[in-house]
Amino acid sequence: MRKVFVIGIGAGDPDHITVQAVKAMNRVDVFFVIDKGSTKDDLTGLRSELLSRHVEHGRYRVVEAADPERDRTAQAYREAVVDWQDRRAEIYEKMITDELGADQVGAFLVWGDPSLYDGTLRLLDRIAARGAVEFEVESIPGISSVQALAAAHRLILNRIGRPVLITTGRRIAAGLPDDVDDVVVMLDGGTAFADLPDTDVDIYWGAYVGTPDEVLVQGNLQEVKGEIARVRAEQRERKGWIMDTYLLRRRPQER
Amino acid sequence: MRKVFVIGIGAGDPDHITVQAVKAMNRVDVFFVIDKGSTKDDLTGLRSELLSRHVEHGRYRVVEAADPERDRTAQAYREAVVDWQDRRAEIYEKMITDELGADQVGAFLVWGDPSLYDGTLRLLDRIAARGAVEFEVESIPGISSVQALAAAHRLILNRIGRPVLITTGRRIAAGLPDDVDDVVVMLDGGTAFADLPDTDVDIYWGAYVGTPDEVLVQGNLQEVKGEIARVRAEQRERKGWIMDTYLLRRRPQER
Repeated sequence: MRKVFVIGIGAGDPDHITVQAVKAMNRVDVFFVIDKGSTKDDLTGLRSELLSRHVEHGRYRVVEAADPERDRTAQAYREAVVDWQDRRAEIYEKMITDELGADQVGAFLVWGDPSLYDGTLRLLDRIAARGAVEFEVESIPGISSVQALAAAHRLILNRIGRPVLITTGRRIAAGLPDDVDDVVVMLDGGTAFADLPDTDVDIYWGAYVGTPDEVLVQGNLQEVKGEIARVRAEQRERKGWIMDTYLLRRRPQER
Repeated sequence: MRKVFVIGIGAGDPDHITVQAVKAMNRVDVFFVIDKGSTKDDLTGLRSELLSRHVEHGRYRVVEAADPERDRTAQAYREAVVDWQDRRAEIYEKMITDELGADQVGAFLVWGDPSLYDGTLRLLDRIAARGAVEFEVESIPGISSVQALAAAHRLILNRIGRPVLITTGRRIAAGLPDDVDDVVVMLDGGTAFADLPDTDVDIYWGAYVGTPDEVLVQGNLQEVKGEIARVRAEQRERKGWIMDTYLLRRRPQER
């Protein structure tokens, strides 16, 4: 039976790779690569470095496909993503069917952790459900950008006995929830934090965390939001893309 | 200046260790160990295995101290934890002061990730604030039990564009939040899930995830909660301790 690994390779630092991921990579015949456009050079560089540093056998192949275009202007965000993922599923299915022999092992290397804001496992479930090709899936956890951000700021994400919410820029734009004081924001394509009115919130922000380009800013949200917006725009301009994450932390109140 | 690493060693599988953690471990002169009582044998075993497998120099020392007793019956949970952490801070401060030379490197190896429901970084902040001993702290991320659970069940924790809440057994006992459909529960000393009335929720449960003792159960909460409670009690009896985590996932509604 065909096997497909989904391997988390960490948030940008090649040393985030786990021994488990290295062992899995050494079992792989075919690495599947989706060209993500602007981030391509950096992703390709990291992937090549990991393969050449850790894969001992030289018999693997790398198969590339282009990512389908996505309607990023769509108002109906969820529908646009679902449609895009349908097209992506077709591409993945074709790669697995055409490129992977009946007893071979394939792998997708994904940024961060396969369990957090990465769609690869969902796509593989969808392909399996279509039934055109049979394969077994194994997920290998990796260091996520959330963890890299926390480590860079030497943070514990939760306060004692308290929850942590991980959410998106789109959702946080509607305001911080009342019942959670520690909110990690991923997938903010802009600067949703800058529109929040809260004066009792600190932000711990980081871009390209774990890489030589790492930039960190922290402080009271209202005091540093302008600086973050400026740094973010400069870095995005300089590199052509940005990957950033942040924690919003409400200051403790008397409860 | 003294340096203290807080190194995440993963959720129980020795192969969760990252290359970054291995590199850090190889710079360490003194590993600090807190005896946690019942989990001791397993923790000690994992730690010894990691040190002997990955640390190349043989000149490190291991310094052990007993964990202060904690009032687990306290109604005022937060206060009991704070008091316990004060006593712990004293122990840690003494270990760093007495055992670490002025230019030496120490390390605490922690289960999972230092940024999630681990108090070591908080304790080190507290010690630094007391000012009796100067040291620099570096946090090394590790695979958390949340990620190990997700990988074991081949799950993505979030749904498309939706948030994930990470919370505790104590808090979930009050009911699932209305506005989050994916809730990860850590630190449930009992079976808080079993009291939830929800019929539209699936549970993905795991104990000792990533170890040879791994046990997984999944299904509709009402249908499998009895089985999980039974398995949990058996395993806890057998090993003398249990470390379990679960995802509660509300089934999609028409929105």
